Amino acid sequence: MSHPETDQELAERGARVMWSDDVASRALGMQVVEVGPGRAVVSMTVRPDMVNGWDVAHGGLVASLADSAFAVACNTRGTVTVAAGFDVTFLESGRLGDELVATAEERSLRGRSGLYDVTVRRADGTVVAEFRGRSRSLGRQIPQDS
Amino acid sequence: MSHPETDQELAERGARVMWSDDVASRALGMQVVEVGPGRAVVSMTVRPDMVNGWDVAHGGLVASLADSAFAVACNTRGTVTVAAGFDVTFLESGRLGDELVATAEERSLRGRSGLYDVTVRRADGTVVAEFRGRSRSLGRQIPQDS
Amino acid sequence: MSHPETDQELAERGARVMWSDDVASRALGMQVVEVGPGRAVVSMTVRPDMVNGWDVAHGGLVASLADSAFAVACNTRGTVTVAAGFDVTFLESGRLGDELVATAEERSLRGRSGLYDVTVRRADGTVVAEFRGRSRSLGRQIPQDS
Amino acid sequence: MSHPETDQELAERGARVMWSDDVASRALGMQVVEVGPGRAVVSMTVRPDMVNGWDVAHGGLVASLADSAFAVACNTRGTVTVAAGFDVTFLESGRLGDELVATAEERSLRGRSGLYDVTVRRADGTVVAEFRGRSRSLGRQIPQDS
Repeated sequence: MSHPETDQELAERGARVMWSDDVASRALGMQVVEVGPGRAVVSMTVRPDMVNGWDVAHGGLVASLADSAFAVACNTRGTVTVAAGFDVTFLESGRLGDELVATAEERSLRGRSGLYDVTVRRADGTVVAEFRGRSRSLGRQIPQDS
Repeated sequence: MSHPETDQELAERGARVMWSDDVASRALGMQVVEVGPGRAVVSMTVRPDMVNGWDVAHGGLVASLADSAFAVACNTRGTVTVAAGFDVTFLESGRLGDELVATAEERSLRGRSGLYDVTVRRADGTVVAEFRGRSRSLGRQIPQDS
Repeated sequence: MSHPETDQELAERGARVMWSDDVASRALGMQVVEVGPGRAVVSMTVRPDMVNGWDVAHGGLVASLADSAFAVACNTRGTVTVAAGFDVTFLESGRLGDELVATAEERSLRGRSGLYDVTVRRADGTVVAEFRGRSRSLGRQIPQDS
Repeated sequence: MSHPETDQELAERGARVMWSDDVASRALGMQVVEVGPGRAVVSMTVRPDMVNGWDVAHGGLVASLADSAFAVACNTRGTVTVAAGFDVTFLESGRLGDELVATAEERSLRGRSGLYDVTVRRADGTVVAEFRGRSRSLGRQIPQDS
Protein backbone atom coordinates (compact mmCIF):
# COMPACT_ATOMS: atom_id res chain seq x y z
CA MET A 1 0.00 0.00 0.00
CA SER A 2 1.37 3.37 -0.98
CA HIS A 3 1.34 6.62 0.96
CA PRO A 4 1.96 10.21 -0.10
CA GLU A 5 5.69 10.88 -0.45
CA THR A 6 7.08 12.77 2.57
CA ASP A 7 9.49 15.70 2.21
CA GLN A 8 12.26 13.42 3.38
CA GLU A 9 11.40 10.75 0.81
CA LEU A 10 11.23 13.38 -1.92
CA ALA A 11 14.66 14.66 -0.85
CA GLU A 12 16.14 11.16 -0.91
CA ARG A 13 14.64 10.43 -4.31
CA GLY A 14 16.04 13.67 -5.76
CA ALA A 15 19.48 12.85 -4.40
CA ARG A 16 19.31 9.25 -5.65
CA VAL A 17 18.23 10.20 -9.17
CA MET A 18 20.85 12.92 -9.41
CA TRP A 19 23.67 10.90 -7.91
CA SER A 20 23.02 7.78 -9.98
CA ASP A 21 23.98 9.72 -13.11
CA ASP A 22 26.76 11.77 -11.55
CA VAL A 23 29.75 9.87 -12.86
CA ALA A 24 32.13 12.73 -12.08
CA SER A 25 31.39 12.91 -8.36
CA ARG A 26 31.70 9.17 -8.03
CA ALA A 27 34.94 9.11 -10.04
CA LEU A 28 36.32 11.59 -7.49
CA GLY A 29 35.42 9.10 -4.76
CA MET A 30 32.67 11.23 -3.26
CA GLN A 31 29.97 9.70 -1.10
CA VAL A 32 26.60 11.06 -0.05
CA VAL A 33 26.56 10.83 3.73
CA GLU A 34 23.22 12.43 4.51
CA VAL A 35 20.28 14.03 2.71
CA GLY A 36 17.25 15.99 3.85
CA PRO A 37 14.98 18.71 2.49
CA GLY A 38 17.31 21.52 1.35
CA ARG A 39 20.27 19.76 2.88
CA ALA A 40 23.11 17.35 1.95
CA VAL A 41 26.38 16.09 3.37
CA VAL A 42 28.99 14.69 0.94
CA SER A 43 32.49 13.41 1.72
CA MET A 44 35.68 12.98 -0.34
CA THR A 45 39.13 11.74 0.61
CA VAL A 46 42.07 13.68 -0.85
CA ARG A 47 43.90 11.20 -3.10
CA PRO A 48 47.43 11.41 -4.51
CA ASP A 49 46.00 12.50 -7.87
CA MET A 50 44.19 15.44 -6.24
CA VAL A 51 47.08 17.48 -4.88
CA ASN A 52 48.54 20.51 -6.54
CA GLY A 53 51.72 22.45 -6.87
CA TRP A 54 52.05 23.42 -3.24
CA ASP A 55 51.35 19.87 -2.01
CA VAL A 56 47.77 20.45 -0.93
CA ALA A 57 44.37 19.54 -2.34
CA HIS A 58 43.70 21.39 -5.62
CA GLY A 59 41.30 24.24 -4.79
CA GLY A 60 39.13 23.39 -7.75
CA LEU A 61 38.60 19.88 -6.39
CA VAL A 62 37.70 21.19 -2.94
CA ALA A 63 35.21 23.45 -4.73
CA SER A 64 34.01 20.41 -6.72
CA LEU A 65 33.21 18.63 -3.47
CA ALA A 66 31.24 21.63 -2.25
CA ASP A 67 29.56 21.94 -5.66
CA SER A 68 28.44 18.30 -5.50
CA ALA A 69 26.96 18.75 -2.02
CA PHE A 70 25.21 21.89 -3.31
CA ALA A 71 23.89 19.98 -6.35
CA VAL A 72 22.41 17.28 -4.16
CA ALA A 73 20.88 19.76 -1.72
CA CYS A 74 19.22 21.87 -4.41
CA ASN A 75 17.65 18.79 -6.03
CA THR A 76 15.86 17.74 -2.83
CA ARG A 77 12.87 20.05 -3.36
CA GLY A 78 11.15 18.22 -6.20
CA THR A 79 12.28 20.05 -9.34
CA VAL A 80 15.35 19.50 -11.49
CA THR A 81 17.73 22.25 -10.49
CA VAL A 82 21.14 23.33 -11.79
CA ALA A 83 23.98 25.50 -10.56
CA ALA A 84 23.97 29.04 -11.94
CA GLY A 85 27.25 29.82 -10.22
CA PHE A 86 29.03 29.92 -6.90
CA ASP A 87 31.54 31.78 -4.77
CA VAL A 88 34.16 30.01 -2.68
CA THR A 89 36.70 31.23 -0.12
CA PHE A 90 39.63 29.03 0.87
CA LEU A 91 40.52 29.18 4.56
CA GLU A 92 42.79 26.18 5.15
CA SER A 93 44.35 23.52 2.97
CA GLY A 94 43.00 20.05 2.51
CA ARG A 95 45.90 17.63 2.59
CA LEU A 96 46.73 14.27 1.12
CA GLY A 97 44.69 11.61 2.94
CA ASP A 98 42.27 14.04 4.59
CA GLU A 99 38.64 13.04 4.55
CA LEU A 100 36.86 16.26 3.66
CA VAL A 101 33.18 16.65 4.50
CA ALA A 102 30.94 19.22 2.77
CA THR A 103 27.70 20.21 4.48
CA ALA A 104 25.21 22.07 2.28
CA GLU A 105 22.24 23.99 3.68
CA GLU A 106 19.59 25.93 1.83
CA ARG A 107 19.79 29.58 2.77
CA SER A 108 16.96 30.93 0.68
CA LEU A 109 14.61 29.77 -2.04
CA ARG A 110 12.50 32.24 -3.96
CA GLY A 111 10.70 31.28 -7.13
CA ARG A 112 13.18 29.33 -9.24
CA SER A 113 16.26 30.83 -7.57
CA GLY A 114 18.00 29.42 -4.52
CA LEU A 115 21.07 30.12 -2.40
CA TYR A 116 22.95 27.32 -0.63
CA ASP A 117 25.76 27.64 1.89
CA VAL A 118 28.32 24.85 1.95
CA THR A 119 31.07 24.44 4.54
CA VAL A 120 33.94 22.03 3.81
CA ARG A 121 35.68 20.67 6.91
CA ARG A 122 38.50 18.31 7.76
CA ALA A 123 37.74 15.39 10.11
CA ASP A 124 38.97 17.48 13.07
CA GLY A 125 36.40 20.17 12.28
CA THR A 126 38.81 22.71 10.77
CA VAL A 127 37.01 24.71 8.11
CA VAL A 128 38.75 24.31 4.76
CA ALA A 129 36.38 26.35 2.60
CA GLU A 130 33.17 28.35 2.68
CA PHE A 131 31.09 28.15 -0.49
CA ARG A 132 27.83 29.81 -1.54
CA GLY A 133 25.97 28.36 -4.52
CA ARG A 134 23.33 30.04 -6.68
CA SER A 135 20.79 27.58 -8.08
CA ARG A 136 18.18 27.81 -10.81
CA SER A 137 15.28 25.38 -11.12
CA LEU A 138 14.46 24.18 -14.64
CA GLY A 139 10.83 23.89 -13.57
CA ARG A 140 10.32 20.23 -14.41
CA GLN A 141 9.74 17.50 -11.82
CA ILE A 142 12.45 15.13 -10.64
CA PRO A 143 11.71 11.87 -12.49
CA GLN A 144 10.65 8.71 -10.68
CA ASP A 145 13.41 6.20 -10.17
CA SER A 146 12.86 2.51 -10.81
CA MET B 1 76.60 33.74 -21.15
CA SER B 2 73.63 34.66 -18.99
CA HIS B 3 71.34 37.66 -19.29
CA PRO B 4 68.83 39.17 -16.86
CA GLU B 5 65.59 37.21 -16.87
CA THR B 6 62.86 38.90 -18.93
CA ASP B 7 59.26 39.21 -17.73
CA GLN B 8 58.31 36.51 -20.22
CA GLU B 9 61.05 34.16 -18.94
CA LEU B 10 60.00 34.84 -15.35
CA ALA B 11 56.38 34.04 -16.28
CA GLU B 12 57.39 30.80 -17.99
CA ARG B 13 59.54 29.76 -15.04
CA GLY B 14 56.70 30.41 -12.58
CA ALA B 15 54.33 28.35 -14.70
CA ARG B 16 56.86 25.53 -15.12
CA VAL B 17 57.67 25.29 -11.41
CA MET B 18 54.02 25.38 -10.43
CA TRP B 19 52.84 22.99 -13.08
CA SER B 20 55.57 20.41 -12.50
CA ASP B 21 54.14 19.77 -9.04
CA ASP B 22 50.49 20.08 -9.97
CA VAL B 23 49.53 16.42 -10.10
CA ALA B 24 45.82 17.20 -9.93
CA SER B 25 45.69 19.39 -13.03
CA ARG B 26 47.69 16.86 -15.01
CA ALA B 27 45.51 13.98 -13.76
CA LEU B 28 42.54 15.88 -15.16
CA GLY B 29 44.33 15.96 -18.52
CA MET B 30 44.91 19.72 -18.48
CA GLN B 31 47.61 21.27 -20.64
CA VAL B 32 49.21 24.70 -20.45
CA VAL B 33 48.79 26.20 -23.90
CA GLU B 34 50.26 29.65 -23.36
CA VAL B 35 51.86 31.73 -20.61
CA GLY B 36 52.82 35.37 -20.28
CA PRO B 37 53.15 37.98 -17.54
CA GLY B 38 49.79 37.91 -15.69
CA ARG B 39 48.31 35.60 -18.30
CA ALA B 40 47.76 31.87 -18.96
CA VAL B 41 45.77 29.64 -21.28
CA VAL B 42 45.00 26.08 -20.14
CA SER B 43 42.93 23.42 -21.93
CA MET B 44 41.05 20.29 -20.81
CA THR B 45 38.97 17.76 -22.74
CA VAL B 46 35.74 16.62 -21.06
CA ARG B 47 36.19 12.89 -20.43
CA PRO B 48 33.56 10.24 -19.64
CA ASP B 49 34.55 10.41 -15.97
CA MET B 50 33.89 14.17 -15.85
CA VAL B 51 30.18 14.32 -16.64
CA ASN B 52 27.45 14.70 -14.09
CA GLY B 53 23.84 13.87 -13.53
CA TRP B 54 22.43 15.93 -16.37
CA ASP B 55 24.97 14.53 -18.84
CA VAL B 56 27.19 17.58 -18.98
CA ALA B 57 30.61 18.45 -17.57
CA HIS B 58 30.53 18.67 -13.75
CA GLY B 59 30.50 22.37 -12.90
CA GLY B 60 33.19 21.86 -10.28
CA LEU B 61 35.53 20.46 -12.91
CA VAL B 62 34.87 23.37 -15.27
CA ALA B 63 35.70 25.60 -12.31
CA SER B 64 38.82 23.47 -11.67
CA LEU B 65 40.01 24.18 -15.19
CA ALA B 66 39.49 27.92 -14.66
CA ASP B 67 41.16 27.67 -11.25
CA SER B 68 44.23 26.01 -12.78
CA ALA B 69 44.53 28.73 -15.44
CA PHE B 70 44.18 31.31 -12.66
CA ALA B 71 46.84 29.54 -10.57
CA VAL B 72 49.31 29.60 -13.45
CA ALA B 73 48.57 33.24 -14.30
CA CYS B 74 49.01 34.48 -10.73
CA ASN B 75 52.37 32.70 -10.39
CA THR B 76 53.89 34.50 -13.39
CA ARG B 77 54.89 37.62 -11.46
CA GLY B 78 57.79 36.22 -9.45
CA THR B 79 56.29 35.37 -6.06
CA VAL B 80 54.60 32.20 -4.86
CA THR B 81 50.90 33.00 -4.94
CA VAL B 82 47.81 31.06 -3.86
CA ALA B 83 44.08 31.31 -4.46
CA ALA B 84 42.14 33.06 -1.69
CA GLY B 85 38.84 32.31 -3.40
CA PHE B 86 36.89 32.73 -6.60
CA ASP B 87 33.45 33.34 -8.07
CA VAL B 88 32.18 31.48 -11.12
CA THR B 89 29.06 31.84 -13.26
CA PHE B 90 27.99 29.03 -15.56
CA LEU B 91 26.61 30.17 -18.90
CA GLU B 92 26.58 27.06 -21.09
CA SER B 93 27.37 23.41 -20.54
CA GLY B 94 30.59 21.75 -21.43
CA ARG B 95 29.80 18.37 -23.01
CA LEU B 96 31.44 15.04 -23.29
CA GLY B 97 34.35 15.29 -25.70
CA ASP B 98 34.49 19.10 -25.75
CA GLU B 99 37.93 20.63 -25.58
CA LEU B 100 37.47 23.48 -23.12
CA VAL B 101 39.96 26.35 -23.11
CA ALA B 102 40.40 28.66 -20.12
CA THR B 103 42.02 32.05 -20.69
CA ALA B 104 43.17 33.85 -17.53
CA GLU B 105 44.07 37.54 -17.47
CA GLU B 106 45.24 39.65 -14.57
CA ARG B 107 42.68 42.35 -13.86
CA SER B 108 44.41 44.07 -10.97
CA LEU B 109 47.38 43.57 -8.70
CA ARG B 110 47.82 45.65 -5.58
CA GLY B 111 50.30 44.73 -2.90
CA ARG B 112 49.91 41.02 -2.27
CA SER B 113 46.32 40.84 -3.57
CA GLY B 114 45.36 40.19 -7.16
CA LEU B 115 42.21 39.68 -9.24
CA TYR B 116 42.18 37.45 -12.32
CA ASP B 117 39.40 37.04 -14.87
CA VAL B 118 39.14 33.65 -16.53
CA THR B 119 36.82 32.82 -19.43
CA VAL B 120 36.20 29.16 -20.30
CA ARG B 121 35.18 28.53 -23.91
CA ARG B 122 34.31 25.62 -26.15
CA ALA B 123 36.28 25.16 -29.37
CA ASP B 124 33.58 27.06 -31.29
CA GLY B 125 34.06 30.08 -29.03
CA THR B 126 30.88 29.63 -26.96
CA VAL B 127 31.49 30.91 -23.43
CA VAL B 128 30.92 28.12 -20.91
CA ALA B 129 31.85 29.99 -17.73
CA GLU B 130 33.10 33.32 -16.43
CA PHE B 131 35.35 33.08 -13.39
CA ARG B 132 37.02 35.71 -11.20
CA GLY B 133 39.82 34.61 -8.90
CA ARG B 134 41.19 36.39 -5.84
CA SER B 135 44.88 35.72 -5.25
CA ARG B 136 47.21 36.27 -2.34
CA SER B 137 50.99 36.30 -2.65
CA LEU B 138 52.92 34.48 0.09
CA GLY B 139 55.74 36.97 -0.40
CA ARG B 140 58.51 34.50 -1.18
CA GLN B 141 60.21 34.18 -4.54
CA ILE B 142 59.36 31.47 -7.07
CA PRO B 143 62.23 28.97 -6.73
CA GLN B 144 64.72 28.31 -9.52
CA ASP B 145 64.03 25.18 -11.50
CA SER B 146 66.81 22.83 -12.49
CA MET C 1 10.62 61.63 -40.82
CA SER C 2 11.33 58.65 -38.65
CA HIS C 3 13.96 55.95 -39.09
CA PRO C 4 14.48 52.61 -37.37
CA GLU C 5 16.04 53.08 -33.96
CA THR C 6 19.77 52.31 -33.99
CA ASP C 7 21.47 50.26 -31.25
CA GLN C 8 22.97 53.48 -29.93
CA GLU C 9 19.60 55.22 -29.84
CA LEU C 10 18.05 52.21 -28.10
CA ALA C 11 20.86 52.28 -25.54
CA GLU C 12 20.37 56.00 -24.91
CA ARG C 13 16.63 55.59 -24.56
CA GLY C 14 17.06 52.75 -22.05
CA ALA C 15 19.46 54.85 -20.01
CA ARG C 16 17.21 57.92 -20.17
CA VAL C 17 14.08 56.05 -19.09
CA MET C 18 15.88 54.30 -16.28
CA TRP C 19 17.76 57.33 -15.05
CA SER C 20 14.76 59.68 -15.10
CA ASP C 21 13.17 57.59 -12.34
CA ASP C 22 16.34 56.83 -10.42
CA VAL C 23 15.98 59.28 -7.59
CA ALA C 24 18.58 57.51 -5.47
CA SER C 25 21.43 57.79 -7.97
CA ARG C 26 20.67 61.43 -8.56
CA ALA C 27 20.41 62.13 -4.81
CA LEU C 28 23.93 60.72 -4.51
CA GLY C 29 25.04 63.25 -7.12
CA MET C 30 25.76 60.68 -9.81
CA GLN C 31 25.90 61.67 -13.46
CA VAL C 32 25.70 59.52 -16.58
CA VAL C 33 28.79 60.41 -18.59
CA GLU C 34 28.46 58.01 -21.50
CA VAL C 35 26.14 55.27 -22.76
CA GLY C 36 26.37 52.70 -25.53
CA PRO C 37 25.06 49.22 -26.25
CA GLY C 38 26.03 47.13 -23.19
CA ARG C 39 28.08 49.98 -21.79
CA ALA C 40 27.81 52.93 -19.40
CA VAL C 41 30.05 55.39 -17.60
CA VAL C 42 28.73 57.06 -14.44
CA SER C 43 30.54 59.50 -12.11
CA MET C 44 30.10 60.53 -8.46
CA THR C 45 32.03 62.94 -6.27
CA VAL C 46 32.72 61.79 -2.70
CA ARG C 47 30.86 64.24 -0.47
CA PRO C 48 31.31 64.92 3.26
CA ASP C 49 28.19 62.84 3.97
CA MET C 50 29.68 59.81 2.17
CA VAL C 51 32.74 59.08 4.27
CA ASN C 52 32.95 56.40 6.90
CA GLY C 53 34.70 55.58 10.10
CA TRP C 54 38.21 55.39 8.71
CA ASP C 55 37.80 58.68 6.83
CA VAL C 56 37.32 57.23 3.36
CA ALA C 57 34.31 56.75 1.09
CA HIS C 58 31.85 54.23 2.51
CA GLY C 59 32.37 50.98 0.59
CA GLY C 60 28.66 50.55 0.11
CA LEU C 61 28.46 53.90 -1.65
CA VAL C 62 31.38 53.03 -3.92
CA ALA C 63 29.47 49.83 -4.69
CA SER C 64 26.31 51.91 -5.24
CA LEU C 65 28.12 53.93 -7.90
CA ALA C 66 29.22 50.71 -9.63
CA ASP C 67 25.72 49.30 -9.25
CA SER C 68 24.21 52.36 -10.93
CA ALA C 69 26.62 52.11 -13.87
CA PHE C 70 25.75 48.40 -14.10
CA ALA C 71 22.01 49.20 -14.00
CA VAL C 72 22.34 51.67 -16.86
CA ALA C 73 24.50 49.32 -18.93
CA CYS C 74 22.15 46.35 -18.57
CA ASN C 75 19.14 48.44 -19.63
CA THR C 76 20.69 49.43 -22.97
CA ARG C 77 19.64 46.25 -24.80
CA GLY C 78 15.93 46.90 -25.10
CA THR C 79 14.37 44.99 -22.22
CA VAL C 80 13.76 46.06 -18.64
CA THR C 81 16.52 44.43 -16.65
CA VAL C 82 17.27 44.27 -12.92
CA ALA C 83 20.26 43.33 -10.77
CA ALA C 84 20.18 39.78 -9.42
CA GLY C 85 23.33 40.39 -7.41
CA PHE C 86 26.95 41.46 -7.61
CA ASP C 87 30.42 40.90 -6.23
CA VAL C 88 32.79 43.75 -5.43
CA THR C 89 36.44 43.88 -4.40
CA PHE C 90 37.87 47.03 -2.84
CA LEU C 91 41.42 47.85 -3.95
CA GLU C 92 41.98 51.44 -2.88
CA SER C 93 40.00 54.01 -0.96
CA GLY C 94 37.95 56.73 -2.48
CA ARG C 95 38.54 59.90 -0.51
CA LEU C 96 36.62 63.02 0.32
CA GLY C 97 36.41 65.20 -2.80
CA ASP C 98 37.49 62.49 -5.24
CA GLU C 99 35.52 62.30 -8.46
CA LEU C 100 35.02 58.56 -8.92
CA VAL C 101 34.20 57.21 -12.37
CA ALA C 102 32.56 53.80 -12.88
CA THR C 103 32.87 52.16 -16.30
CA ALA C 104 30.49 49.25 -16.92
CA GLU C 105 30.97 46.79 -19.79
CA GLU C 106 28.84 43.81 -20.72
CA ARG C 107 30.88 40.65 -20.36
CA SER C 108 28.28 38.12 -21.43
CA LEU C 109 24.58 37.97 -22.23
CA ARG C 110 22.79 34.66 -22.57
CA GLY C 111 19.03 34.42 -22.63
CA ARG C 112 17.75 36.63 -19.83
CA SER C 113 20.99 36.50 -17.81
CA GLY C 114 23.89 38.90 -18.17
CA LEU C 115 27.25 39.61 -16.55
CA TYR C 116 28.70 43.13 -16.39
CA ASP C 117 32.16 44.16 -15.26
CA VAL C 118 32.47 47.57 -13.66
CA THR C 119 35.73 49.29 -12.74
CA VAL C 120 35.64 52.30 -10.41
CA ARG C 121 38.59 54.67 -10.77
CA ARG C 122 39.83 57.92 -9.27
CA ALA C 123 40.55 60.81 -11.63
CA ASP C 124 44.23 59.80 -11.72
CA GLY C 125 43.28 56.35 -13.01
CA THR C 126 43.86 54.46 -9.75
CA VAL C 127 41.45 51.55 -9.53
CA VAL C 128 39.29 51.85 -6.42
CA ALA C 129 37.06 48.81 -6.93
CA GLU C 130 36.33 45.95 -9.31
CA PHE C 131 32.68 44.93 -9.49
CA ARG C 132 30.88 42.16 -11.36
CA GLY C 133 27.10 42.38 -11.67
CA ARG C 134 24.65 39.61 -12.48
CA SER C 135 21.56 40.86 -14.33
CA ARG C 136 18.19 39.34 -15.11
CA SER C 137 15.89 40.63 -17.82
CA LEU C 138 12.19 40.85 -16.92
CA GLY C 139 11.37 40.18 -20.58
CA ARG C 140 9.31 43.28 -21.24
CA GLN C 141 10.37 46.09 -23.55
CA ILE C 142 11.82 49.37 -22.32
CA PRO C 143 8.92 51.85 -22.58
CA GLN C 144 8.97 54.78 -24.99
CA ASP C 145 9.84 58.08 -23.38
CA SER C 146 7.96 61.25 -24.17
CA MET D 1 37.45 50.15 40.35
CA SER D 2 38.18 48.76 36.93
CA HIS D 3 37.79 45.22 35.67
CA PRO D 4 39.15 43.47 32.62
CA GLU D 5 37.08 44.30 29.54
CA THR D 6 34.66 41.50 28.62
CA ASP D 7 34.17 40.29 25.03
CA GLN D 8 30.83 42.06 25.02
CA GLU D 9 32.36 45.33 26.22
CA LEU D 10 35.12 45.03 23.62
CA ALA D 11 32.49 44.46 20.93
CA GLU D 12 30.49 47.49 22.05
CA ARG D 13 33.59 49.68 22.18
CA GLY D 14 34.59 48.63 18.64
CA ALA D 15 31.12 49.43 17.35
CA ARG D 16 31.02 52.76 19.18
CA VAL D 17 34.41 53.90 17.92
CA MET D 18 33.63 52.87 14.38
CA TRP D 19 30.14 54.26 14.30
CA SER D 20 31.02 57.63 15.83
CA ASP D 21 33.10 58.41 12.73
CA ASP D 22 30.80 56.79 10.20
CA VAL D 23 29.13 59.87 8.79
CA ALA D 24 27.86 58.02 5.74
CA SER D 25 25.88 55.38 7.62
CA ARG D 26 24.31 58.00 9.84
CA ALA D 27 23.51 60.24 6.85
CA LEU D 28 21.59 57.27 5.42
CA GLY D 29 19.60 57.15 8.65
CA MET D 30 21.07 53.84 9.81
CA GLN D 31 20.93 52.83 13.46
CA VAL D 32 22.89 50.19 15.33
CA VAL D 33 20.27 48.02 17.02
CA GLU D 34 22.46 45.37 18.61
CA VAL D 35 26.13 44.42 18.92
CA GLY D 36 27.95 41.38 20.22
CA PRO D 37 31.23 39.57 19.56
CA GLY D 38 31.26 38.90 15.80
CA ARG D 39 27.72 40.14 15.46
CA ALA D 40 25.73 43.30 14.65
CA VAL D 41 22.20 44.34 13.76
CA VAL D 42 21.69 47.63 11.87
CA SER D 43 18.44 49.13 10.58
CA MET D 44 17.56 51.66 7.85
CA THR D 45 14.24 53.03 6.63
CA VAL D 46 13.87 53.39 2.86
CA ARG D 47 13.43 57.11 2.24
CA PRO D 48 12.08 58.89 -0.85
CA ASP D 49 15.66 59.73 -1.88
CA MET D 50 16.65 56.04 -1.82
CA VAL D 51 14.38 54.60 -4.50
CA ASN D 52 15.44 53.84 -8.01
CA GLY D 53 14.10 53.59 -11.51
CA TRP D 54 11.70 50.74 -10.89
CA ASP D 55 10.32 52.37 -7.72
CA VAL D 56 12.11 50.18 -5.21
CA ALA D 57 15.08 50.70 -2.92
CA HIS D 58 18.32 51.16 -4.88
CA GLY D 59 20.21 47.86 -4.67
CA GLY D 60 23.42 49.65 -3.85
CA LEU D 61 21.80 51.22 -0.79
CA VAL D 62 20.45 47.87 0.38
CA ALA D 63 24.00 46.60 -0.02
CA SER D 64 25.26 49.67 1.88
CA LEU D 65 23.05 48.74 4.83
CA ALA D 66 24.44 45.19 4.80
CA ASP D 67 27.96 46.57 4.40
CA SER D 68 27.52 48.79 7.47
CA ALA D 69 26.27 45.88 9.58
CA PHE D 70 29.26 43.86 8.32
CA ALA D 71 31.64 46.72 9.17
CA VAL D 72 30.33 46.92 12.73
CA ALA D 73 30.45 43.14 13.22
CA CYS D 74 34.02 42.77 11.98
CA ASN D 75 35.23 45.54 14.30
CA THR D 76 33.96 43.80 17.44
CA ARG D 77 37.01 41.55 17.84
CA GLY D 78 39.53 44.12 19.01
CA THR D 79 41.45 45.05 15.86
CA VAL D 80 40.71 47.68 13.25
CA THR D 81 39.25 45.78 10.33
CA VAL D 82 38.18 46.82 6.83
CA ALA D 83 36.09 45.32 4.05
CA ALA D 84 38.11 43.59 1.32
CA GLY D 85 34.98 42.93 -0.69
CA PHE D 86 31.56 41.36 -0.64
CA ASP D 87 28.99 39.45 -2.65
CA VAL D 88 25.29 40.23 -2.52
CA THR D 89 22.21 38.53 -3.97
CA PHE D 90 18.92 40.40 -4.21
CA LEU D 91 15.86 38.30 -3.44
CA GLU D 92 13.03 40.79 -2.93
CA SER D 93 12.70 44.53 -3.20
CA GLY D 94 12.88 46.94 -0.35
CA ARG D 95 10.15 49.52 -0.82
CA LEU D 96 9.58 53.12 0.11
CA GLY D 97 8.91 53.34 3.85
CA ASP D 98 10.14 49.83 4.66
CA GLU D 99 12.28 49.51 7.74
CA LEU D 100 15.05 47.16 6.62
CA VAL D 101 17.06 45.28 9.23
CA ALA D 102 20.49 43.79 8.48
CA THR D 103 21.80 41.04 10.76
CA ALA D 104 25.52 40.29 10.44
CA GLU D 105 27.11 37.14 11.83
CA GLU D 106 30.74 36.07 11.72
CA ARG D 107 31.04 32.88 9.71
CA SER D 108 34.77 32.35 9.98
CA LEU D 109 37.85 34.15 11.21
CA ARG D 110 41.30 32.89 10.37
CA GLY D 111 44.36 35.04 10.90
CA ARG D 112 43.56 38.49 9.58
CA SER D 113 40.83 37.28 7.22
CA GLY D 114 37.17 36.94 8.12
CA LEU D 115 33.88 36.06 6.45
CA TYR D 116 30.58 37.57 7.59
CA ASP D 117 27.07 36.63 6.48
CA VAL D 118 24.50 39.38 6.49
CA THR D 119 20.78 38.93 5.89
CA VAL D 120 18.62 41.98 5.13
CA ARG D 121 14.96 41.60 6.01
CA ARG D 122 11.77 43.62 5.90
CA ALA D 123 9.80 44.08 9.12
CA ASP D 124 7.59 41.10 8.18
CA GLY D 125 10.65 38.86 7.96
CA THR D 126 10.83 38.66 4.16
CA VAL D 127 14.45 38.30 3.11
CA VAL D 128 15.45 41.18 0.83
CA ALA D 129 19.12 40.31 0.33
CA GLU D 130 21.80 37.84 1.33
CA PHE D 131 25.29 39.31 1.61
CA ARG D 132 28.67 37.77 2.38
CA GLY D 133 31.52 40.10 3.33
CA ARG D 134 35.25 39.41 3.25
CA SER D 135 37.18 41.32 5.93
CA ARG D 136 40.82 42.05 6.49
CA SER D 137 42.25 43.14 9.84
CA LEU D 138 44.84 45.94 9.73
CA GLY D 139 46.45 44.42 12.81
CA ARG D 140 46.27 47.44 15.06
CA GLN D 141 44.09 47.67 18.15
CA ILE D 142 40.76 49.47 18.25
CA PRO D 143 41.54 52.77 20.03
CA GLN D 144 40.08 53.66 23.43
CA ASP D 145 37.15 56.01 23.30
CA SER D 146 36.80 58.90 25.68
